[in-house]
Amino acid sequence: MKLLITGGGGFVGARLARRLLQSGTLAGQRIDAMVLTDIAPPPSDLLADARVEARTGALLSQTDALRTESFDGVFHLASAVSGECEADFELGLRSNLDSTRALLDALRANVEAGGRAARVVFSSSVAVFGPDPAVPLPKIVADDTLPAPQTSYGTQKLVCEHLLADYTRKGYIDGRAARLMTVAVRPGRPNGAASSFFSGIIREPLAGLESICPVSPEVSHPMSSPARTVDGLVAVYEASREAFCGRTALNLPALNVRVSDMLDALEAVAGRAVRERVRYVPDPMVAGIVGNWARGASAERAQRLGLKPDADFAAVVRQYIEDCERSPAASSALAGFST
Amino acid sequence: MKLLITGGGGFVGARLARRLLQSGTLAGQRIDAMVLTDIAPPPSDLLADARVEARTGALLSQTDALRTESFDGVFHLASAVSGECEADFELGLRSNLDSTRALLDALRANVEAGGRAARVVFSSSVAVFGPDPAVPLPKIVADDTLPAPQTSYGTQKLVCEHLLADYTRKGYIDGRAARLMTVAVRPGRPNGAASSFFSGIIREPLAGLESICPVSPEVSHPMSSPARTVDGLVAVYEASREAFCGRTALNLPALNVRVSDMLDALEAVAGRAVRERVRYVPDPMVAGIVGNWARGASAERAQRLGLKPDADFAAVVRQYIEDCERSPAASSALAGFST
Repeated sequence: MKLLITGGGGFVGARLARRLLQSGTLAGQRIDAMVLTDIAPPPSDLLADARVEARTGALLSQTDALRTESFDGVFHLASAVSGECEADFELGLRSNLDSTRALLDALRANVEAGGRAARVVFSSSVAVFGPDPAVPLPKIVADDTLPAPQTSYGTQKLVCEHLLADYTRKGYIDGRAARLMTVAVRPGRPNGAASSFFSGIIREPLAGLESICPVSPEVSHPMSSPARTVDGLVAVYEASREAFCGRTALNLPALNVRVSDMLDALEAVAGRAVRERVRYVPDPMVAGIVGNWARGASAERAQRLGLKPDADFAAVVRQYIEDCERSPAASSALAGFST
Repeated sequence: MKLLITGGGGFVGARLARRLLQSGTLAGQRIDAMVLTDIAPPPSDLLADARVEARTGALLSQTDALRTESFDGVFHLASAVSGECEADFELGLRSNLDSTRALLDALRANVEAGGRAARVVFSSSVAVFGPDPAVPLPKIVADDTLPAPQTSYGTQKLVCEHLLADYTRKGYIDGRAARLMTVAVRPGRPNGAASSFFSGIIREPLAGLESICPVSPEVSHPMSSPARTVDGLVAVYEASREAFCGRTALNLPALNVRVSDMLDALEAVAGRAVRERVRYVPDPMVAGIVGNWARGASAERAQRLGLKPDADFAAVVRQYIEDCERSPAASSALAGFST
């Protein structure tokens, strides 16, 4: 089978690619070829795999060519992140809405030319939910909570969920939208996501750096480790249409934790000195965005697919440490403590 | 003030234009100029009004010019209808999604050039609601029922609701989405809407013609007369932002009636011979679409704006007869009975 992963050079995309290449199969089929598109090249271990072809550049510049290239499966993960989309409205429309529309139309062109409909997993986001004066946000957002996005990013994700559902209804794709929770701990440096600090307050202290938490310790949020997130994307791909149940998006499992719980877990795993590198400095812009986010999420449909949230946040912290220990950057990433 | 009505040559658009020109004001401001865009010219009485400028052609061909033209208010009614969008997927995307996006971007360009944000009423539709295996459709769809559209038309309307909300949040427009119920009785000939027969089973018998009802007499549906629909659009425009309440779409009031109730009303107003011109001939394509529609709707937010549904379906039939009596086509439209 031939797979396409958009955003395949990114953190979640590369991890998904690595896992699929290691297992060698998806939904019982052997993976013969994997195309990774992204604005930056994927990590070198992926480039070294003979099955992988990396295509670097904006997705929107690549979709015309995709109209005559057939794929068995697609993971559509490419996206501008929430903070970027708030700062640059055009960027969000182009990277999230126009690119998804062009990708769907490329897949449709394949079907209209006589090809089979590709199975498509789309990474939507818990950011589709938000409070509106007419739609109070429940404490825990469920699969069937009414979305009322409060960011352009959330709006674009929701819009793409519905386009995906309609292209699926028409038989142009076999699409499944899965709402990712906030994924932590992300390696590397802070990015433009308003949720970036959820990783930063774990990652920076472990590296021996100070970290700023821009929101109150009482802020609660639905989180997921990278490994559980990738588990979710694969399970959603492998589910039968019936098991996926309908065409509306589902929530991936979340660990609903407060910032203070996250830091307690950090302290339990890495010690008090590490935790004390985090300082609270309120940032009204970030707090304003995060204040409109869900405090927690449930994932009834994903659970029926056998998916579970992380056991606790300490497991999430340990997963990050273990990932770092396997990477060449381990010494700097974990400079802040000794195991 | 200067107004734009897209779809201003259509049935609802022309009726709205006529009403606004007669009253001369909207939201307390004098109407100085009204631009009507549509693929066909508006009725001659509208063209004869010095305040009216008609622009004939596809909306998408006109949006570039709108980027440097400012409007105080916009009623965005232009749309391909449900049956057309099912038959021609590209047409629906272009006429409903791309055109709305281009209109919103034209209004945004005005604001980015220093202009004021236009107030925009968008005609969404009860077709945003539908049953999905994961989202059972309630008997009565409310303002906050989770939409799960089962047609491309409904999908495109829902997508535009959310784009409108985000452009509003960003301050590019002051947008309000109102979900129209099925409007009956429409004059003229059947159109491509799957709901077209709801008008046909009243209109054709009154004109002395046979009419086919493609669904069971037990089918129930949320309906609204043209006059009440226009009332709704005007009230949504005139509402304060606070009274509109949030940025999510609201339902306009519906009279929830069964097909048999509609024909009972026709008989009560026009006699048994008229009713007997309706024959039931099931059409699986139409019945399949209609079977996925809401059986009824509530409109709590619209009621708080003072809006009410029609008193009963006989009033809807009488409104149609009175409209015909005022029109030059009265003799043929009402050839089938004597009052």
